[in-house]
Amino acid sequence: MAIANKRFIAVIGGNQCSKEEAKLAEEVGRELARRGAALVCGGLGGVMEAACKGASSEGGLTIGILPGESRLVANPYVQIPIVTGIGYARNVAVVKSAQAVIAIGGNYGTLSEIAHALQSDIPVIGLNTWSLSRNGQLDESIIPAQSPAEAVNKALSLAKNR
Amino acid sequence: MAIANKRFIAVIGGNQCSKEEAKLAEEVGRELARRGAALVCGGLGGVMEAACKGASSEGGLTIGILPGESRLVANPYVQIPIVTGIGYARNVAVVKSAQAVIAIGGNYGTLSEIAHALQSDIPVIGLNTWSLSRNGQLDESIIPAQSPAEAVNKALSLAKNR
Amino acid sequence: MAIANKRFIAVIGGNQCSKEEAKLAEEVGRELARRGAALVCGGLGGVMEAACKGASSEGGLTIGILPGESRLVANPYVQIPIVTGIGYARNVAVVKSAQAVIAIGGNYGTLSEIAHALQSDIPVIGLNTWSLSRNGQLDESIIPAQSPAEAVNKALSLAKNR
Amino acid sequence: MAIANKRFIAVIGGNQCSKEEAKLAEEVGRELARRGAALVCGGLGGVMEAACKGASSEGGLTIGILPGESRLVANPYVQIPIVTGIGYARNVAVVKSAQAVIAIGGNYGTLSEIAHALQSDIPVIGLNTWSLSRNGQLDESIIPAQSPAEAVNKALSLAKNR
Repeated sequence: MAIANKRFIAVIGGNQCSKEEAKLAEEVGRELARRGAALVCGGLGGVMEAACKGASSEGGLTIGILPGESRLVANPYVQIPIVTGIGYARNVAVVKSAQAVIAIGGNYGTLSEIAHALQSDIPVIGLNTWSLSRNGQLDESIIPAQSPAEAVNKALSLAKNR
Repeated sequence: MAIANKRFIAVIGGNQCSKEEAKLAEEVGRELARRGAALVCGGLGGVMEAACKGASSEGGLTIGILPGESRLVANPYVQIPIVTGIGYARNVAVVKSAQAVIAIGGNYGTLSEIAHALQSDIPVIGLNTWSLSRNGQLDESIIPAQSPAEAVNKALSLAKNR
Repeated sequence: MAIANKRFIAVIGGNQCSKEEAKLAEEVGRELARRGAALVCGGLGGVMEAACKGASSEGGLTIGILPGESRLVANPYVQIPIVTGIGYARNVAVVKSAQAVIAIGGNYGTLSEIAHALQSDIPVIGLNTWSLSRNGQLDESIIPAQSPAEAVNKALSLAKNR
Repeated sequence: MAIANKRFIAVIGGNQCSKEEAKLAEEVGRELARRGAALVCGGLGGVMEAACKGASSEGGLTIGILPGESRLVANPYVQIPIVTGIGYARNVAVVKSAQAVIAIGGNYGTLSEIAHALQSDIPVIGLNTWSLSRNGQLDESIIPAQSPAEAVNKALSLAKNR
C-alpha cells in the first residue's frame, strides 16, 4: 500500500489552453510523478489532459474527477475516473481531494476552484494564472511560481494532511 | 401566480461582514423588494442576513439556499429555506438560481460564487467586492456599481431568463 | 412573513406517470395548499407537475428544485425554481428541504428520494408507491395512506421542524 | 497504464455491519482484487472497510469517495481517498464511478445507492440486501447472488463501459 502514503496534488486549468500552458502542465505532471505524488484533476482536456499526459509518461498516478455522467469523456491519460454526475459542483471535490493545488492559466471554472481551495485553507500555487484583489487591496493568497519545478516544490512542501 | 413572473436576483457576500457592508446589503434587499424581485442568497448571516432583512421590511420574497442539513440555521428573514446538504457546493445552486448576482464585499466563498456565475454567463454586479486579473491583465467581467440602487438597476436590466 | 411559518412538504414521484397517479398528485397538491403548506418538488413533469398544478389552483406556494442548468425546464406551475446544476444529486435537496415527504408511484429516482428521506429521519407517506424489505423482512418505514387527504393529514401531523 | 483497463466495481453497504456482512464484504474485496478489478466504495467503516481490507490483502486498488471535508476519516485500507464535501449526495458519485455495484446488507444510505444505480442503468448485484416491490409487484432489478464469488462473477460479467 505504498500508494497510501502518496501526496495528492491537484492541477487545475482550462479545458482548452494555449500551447505554452499545455507545456507547463505537462512538465508539472512529469515532475509530480517523479516526486511520487498522485495527480488529481477534473479529468477533461486542455491543462488537465496535458498534466495527466506528463504524469503518465513518468509512471505517475492520475485521477480525474469528472462533472458528467460518463467515464468515457475522461482524457486518455486518466487512470482513475471518478464520475460525479454533479456538474461543475465537482470543482469542490477536485480541490478538496488534494493537499495542495497548482493552478495553470485558466478561466472562470479554474477561478472557482482557486476560491474553493482558499476557502478550505488548501494551499494554491499559481503559474500564469488569476490574481485577486479585494476592495482595491491585493490578495496574495495565491503563491506564485516561476516554473513547473518550483510549483511542484512549493506544492509538496506546503501539502497538508487534512 | 404573479410570483412566477418575478425576477430572481442573488445577493452574495460574507457570513460575517462590516457594518458598512451590512448597510449596503440591507438597502439592496429593500430596493429589490420595492422593484418586485425575489431575493436568492445562501441563507446564513452577514451580508445574506442583512439583505434578507431589507427585503422582508419591504414585503419582499427571500430564498435561502443552505449548505448543511438543517433549516434551523437559516437567518430569521429567510422565508423559503432550501436545505441542500451538499456543503459549499451549494454556492453553485445559489448563483444558478438567479438571473443576475449582486456581490457585496465577501471572502473566498463569495469569490467562488462570482466565478461560478461568470462561468455560467450570469451577470455579476459588484459593490466593494473582488476584482480580478488574469495573467496580469484586468478582467472586467464584474460590473461595478457605486450604490445599492445602481446595483439593483443594473442587475434587473441585465437579468437573463435562462 | 406568514410564509415563514408554513410547513414545507415534498411531493415526489415520476417525471412521467399514469393518469391515476396524476389525479392523486393533483389532489395532494390542492389539499396541501388548502391546509397552508408549501409544496416542494423536483420541478419537472408527471407527478411533480400534477402536484404543482393542484397547489396552484388553490393559491398554494410551489417550489421546484431542478436537476439541470436552466429554470426554463420547470413545469409551468412552479413559482420558485431552484436551479441546482447537480443532476440527480438534487434528489437529496428535495427531501431535505421538506419536513415530511409524500411519495406517489414513482420509479428509481423516487426510490432514491425515499431512501435519502428515511436516512435523514424525515417521515415518508406513501400512496401506491414502493415497498421495501431487507434480508427478507418487511421494512415498514414508509407510512401508507389510502387517499390524498389521508396522506396530507399524516404528512402535516408528522412534519418535523428540523 | 494497465490500471486504465481495470474494471471499477462498487461495493456498498452499511457504515456499521454484522460480522457475517463483514465476512462477505472482505471476501468480495479479495475476489475483486484477484480478478484485477478496482474497488470503489464510500470510504468509511463497516462493509466499506471490510471490502477495502480484503482487496488490499490481495494487492488490489481501493478508492473511497468520502462524504465530508477530510481524508482523515477514510478507513485505513483506502488508497485513493476522494474528498467530495457534498455529504450523502456523494452516494451518487459512488455508484456512477462504478461499472457494476455489489450491495451487501445495508441501511437507507445503501438503498439510496441501489436506487441511484438502477436509475442510471448500472447493474446491481445483491448479497443479503434490500428487496423491492412497487405497487405490490416485485421488482427484480437487484440481481441476487448466493456467495461473494458469485457476486463478483456477475458484477464483472455485467459491468458496463459507460
